[in-house]
Amino acid sequence: MVLSGPATEKYCRDWHGDVTSEAVAVLRPRTTNEVADAVKTCARLGLSIVPQGGNTGLVLGALPDRPADQVVISLERMNAIRRIDPDDFSAVVEAGCILSDFKDAVACEGMFFPLALGAQGSCRIGGNVSTNAGGINVLRYGMTRELVLGLECVLPDGSILNGLSTLRKDNRGIDLKQIFIGAEGTLGIITAVAVKLAPQPDQVATALLGLNSLDDAIALFRRARRDCCDLMSAFEFMPPVAFGLAREAIPDLEMPISGDHAAYVLLEISGSGLVDINDLTERFLQAVMEEGLVADGVIASSTAQARNLWLFREGMNEGQAKRGPHLRTDLSVRLSQVPDFVREAEQAVIDVVPDAICVSYGHIGDGNVHLNVLPPAGLSRNEIEARIHDAKKAINTVLDAYNGSLSAEHGIGRLKRTEHEARIAPAQRALLAALKQAVDPQGLMNPGCQLEYERPS
Amino acid sequence: MVLSGPATEKYCRDWHGDVTSEAVAVLRPRTTNEVADAVKTCARLGLSIVPQGGNTGLVLGALPDRPADQVVISLERMNAIRRIDPDDFSAVVEAGCILSDFKDAVACEGMFFPLALGAQGSCRIGGNVSTNAGGINVLRYGMTRELVLGLECVLPDGSILNGLSTLRKDNRGIDLKQIFIGAEGTLGIITAVAVKLAPQPDQVATALLGLNSLDDAIALFRRARRDCCDLMSAFEFMPPVAFGLAREAIPDLEMPISGDHAAYVLLEISGSGLVDINDLTERFLQAVMEEGLVADGVIASSTAQARNLWLFREGMNEGQAKRGPHLRTDLSVRLSQVPDFVREAEQAVIDVVPDAICVSYGHIGDGNVHLNVLPPAGLSRNEIEARIHDAKKAINTVLDAYNGSLSAEHGIGRLKRTEHEARIAPAQRALLAALKQAVDPQGLMNPGCQLEYERPS
Ligand SMILES: Cc1cc2nc3c(=O)[nH]c(=O)nc-3n(C[C@H](O)[C@H](O)[C@H](O)COP(=O)(O)OP(=O)(O)OC[C@H]3O[C@@H](n4cnc5c(N)ncnc54)[C@H](O)[C@@H]3O)c2cc1C
Ligand SMILES: Cc1cc2nc3c(=O)[nH]c(=O)nc-3n(C[C@H](O)[C@H](O)[C@H](O)COP(=O)(O)OP(=O)(O)OC[C@H]3O[C@@H](n4cnc5c(N)ncnc54)[C@H](O)[C@@H]3O)c2cc1C
Repeated sequence: MVLSGPATEKYCRDWHGDVTSEAVAVLRPRTTNEVADAVKTCARLGLSIVPQGGNTGLVLGALPDRPADQVVISLERMNAIRRIDPDDFSAVVEAGCILSDFKDAVACEGMFFPLALGAQGSCRIGGNVSTNAGGINVLRYGMTRELVLGLECVLPDGSILNGLSTLRKDNRGIDLKQIFIGAEGTLGIITAVAVKLAPQPDQVATALLGLNSLDDAIALFRRARRDCCDLMSAFEFMPPVAFGLAREAIPDLEMPISGDHAAYVLLEISGSGLVDINDLTERFLQAVMEEGLVADGVIASSTAQARNLWLFREGMNEGQAKRGPHLRTDLSVRLSQVPDFVREAEQAVIDVVPDAICVSYGHIGDGNVHLNVLPPAGLSRNEIEARIHDAKKAINTVLDAYNGSLSAEHGIGRLKRTEHEARIAPAQRALLAALKQAVDPQGLMNPGCQLEYERPS
Repeated sequence: MVLSGPATEKYCRDWHGDVTSEAVAVLRPRTTNEVADAVKTCARLGLSIVPQGGNTGLVLGALPDRPADQVVISLERMNAIRRIDPDDFSAVVEAGCILSDFKDAVACEGMFFPLALGAQGSCRIGGNVSTNAGGINVLRYGMTRELVLGLECVLPDGSILNGLSTLRKDNRGIDLKQIFIGAEGTLGIITAVAVKLAPQPDQVATALLGLNSLDDAIALFRRARRDCCDLMSAFEFMPPVAFGLAREAIPDLEMPISGDHAAYVLLEISGSGLVDINDLTERFLQAVMEEGLVADGVIASSTAQARNLWLFREGMNEGQAKRGPHLRTDLSVRLSQVPDFVREAEQAVIDVVPDAICVSYGHIGDGNVHLNVLPPAGLSRNEIEARIHDAKKAINTVLDAYNGSLSAEHGIGRLKRTEHEARIAPAQRALLAALKQAVDPQGLMNPGCQLEYERPS
């Protein structure tokens, strides 16, 4: 189960290939007991542990940064689906199961696991829980936290916390599993997860809409929540530049709606059973188009066409990647403040990096904006880094004025630790340090991730 | 702000009037700073603290049990609604605000706060969060935990944790507020809460259904989740004895459906906007009646009639109260196991208390059953206590075999502490003790509630 040397490389390189690192070794246990043994061994040897799932995280949480004393524990071999109980709307799955494998298995039972994100073919359930991942279905089904019924964890002392109950409702005091969700491996290793399942939505209506402004997009979102009975499963915002970027990645992509619009929304409404989702979507869009809230739009008439509308969204991301190193952010502000925030923050960027291209998009129904900044072409790596640094600083200044979050869904990891530490309130920091000390007194788990806790002497 | 002597009585008596106690004093701070001062003063004087909201809790969590050294801190004067932001689907409210006052204020803004329970005219938001209350709308909107966006808390050292953000999505590491939700006042005092709001459901269809068995009720629930697109907002189960009990409380109550049925379900489907909820409900019920899953049923044709159907449910509870002291439970098992569990547990009760009447009802869509036991009439208080004790033991034996929870929604408090402690796994207990020690090293907060933590020397 131990890898070392060159075999560890893929565990020590981040998804974008921007950062590479090293580790003492990579351990790949197959069972919960093997994880416990690995933890105890590391503790005995004075080595610290970096847990890893699919290594798709975007904030360097799964990447060692102290090669001399960090061991990566990869959960990739603990990938069994322990049970799927359609009658209970629940399942139990090991931490190393790839998200899309799990989704597929659940679908075979006529059920639906709602978590959905671009990395689903590679990320693993334990990583999703550890980052409390969001994704495109948060509006309807919540973050990963809201999908978790129970956890099995190996604690830093090697003991096993067995909380894999699939009870829907269980109010026996403080809910310990909550501290591990979103902890990015700093409190223990998640080995298995009990989750909620939903009925498979057998009707999905997908529409691409052109709007006159981001303000209209927010107004449309509010309207949709009411008019469509909270049956919206996705509401993705894209700026006009999105289409150009998507074309750079997918040259033969065709624009699904005519004309230029200041804002685009990819809307998905879904459901099962007796509600006619297509009819609902059509009536909704007709009303908002008559009122002028939506300028133009198309509803997919087949699964293939729906897929095509999503390509627009995905191509935009690939297009950005093709432009080379750039600033990626993952911010949130209050829903009503999204338009003002985006305008102000983009202006602040342009003030310091005049030729930059701002791409603001995201799951904006949650107030979540990815405001990315593409530096102008033809710069050296150092110049690019300097632009990224300046743009980030400018954005954060605006974000702070809005009391926004610098991580809406990706977590803190190592990438955002310094920014995060600079902003955290003393009472909160003290409580986190006390919690860390209580659970992991030796500082064994993922040191350097989230916060730089005082190291035990 | 200090009460003592007879003025403290109502703070020292539980909702049912079964238990009375005493406290050194009752403090009623008006501001967060006053709460912090009160906490510091208690710590200095070596007094411990029992936080209290509306004192409607059913597990004696808010009731002092060490009169010589406990002070009640009542939040009742901190009852302001700080803000309601319909455009953000959020609000901020102080811990002492009565739930129904808050719901009404929110409704005036066209919005909906989904938490709904029998005690809503008396319980307070801080108490709801501290118990992670459930209630009738859990199916659609989740427990209180899922409605909380942020908390302001006073910690045992008197410091203030300000986390009142109304951001929808915020993934900046470990989510500290989670440890206070459901902690029943053992980790600190919640002074204000930021919550999610939903669109006001302007269409509500309410139906009372007669079924042939509890098994059919579970099957119906599964069907309803699929066919009604998760738009179900309540699914309450009642046994045949319910109607008789309801009549004892409300003598002129009329049975809304004819014939005797083995099981009753109160179903509520609700929504807003463009979905025709009545039509959906009618089509659904027609289908399940044709299939024989539902034997008989009535859909309320007016708000008054809907109110009447709920009277059946509420009267059943009042009727039980009129029968005098009895065993109230709040259990959960896996959804698919509810029918077997109820049969076995009721049989186990009858085996030890032959003339008892079992009343099993509840929010069974969540696997939550209130299996209450009414002892036969004409017994002395001591005999009743003995029967209750035996019945509880019998039920718990069955519950343990099902890996069920002895508190689905009410919490542990002082009433269930011993039962809970007897069942908790060592790893879980050790982690809870470490957490308690980290946050409340002096053992100041609500000693005797949830767990008997080791007392500092
Ligand atoms: C193309 C792409 C699209 C993405 N889209 C989204 C999106 O829409 N929404 C979103 O929220 N994220 C998104 N992400 C980020 C990423 O996919 C998620 O954070 C995902 O949840 C990480 O899972 P993973 O298994 O790859 O975790 P890893 O990257 O391996 O680890 C992430 C963190 O969790 C810890 N960890 C992993 N497994 C465990 C375990 N078993 N026990 C304890 N700690 C553990 C690691 O130490 C690390 O700190 C995207 C990433 C990519 C590359
Ligand atoms: C008729 C009736 C029906 C009920 N129905 C339901 C139901 O359907 N579902 C359900 O879940 N419960 C139900 N309950 C139980 C009860 O109403 C809930 O538990 C409610 O949430 C308690 O709120 P409270 O303000 O009365 O809290 P209290 O009883 O005052 O306190 C409850 C616990 O929380 C602590 N606490 C209170 N306020 C704070 C604070 N500000 N900070 C820290 N700790 C605090 C107390 O110390 C105590 O441990 C019902 C009760 C009654 C009487």
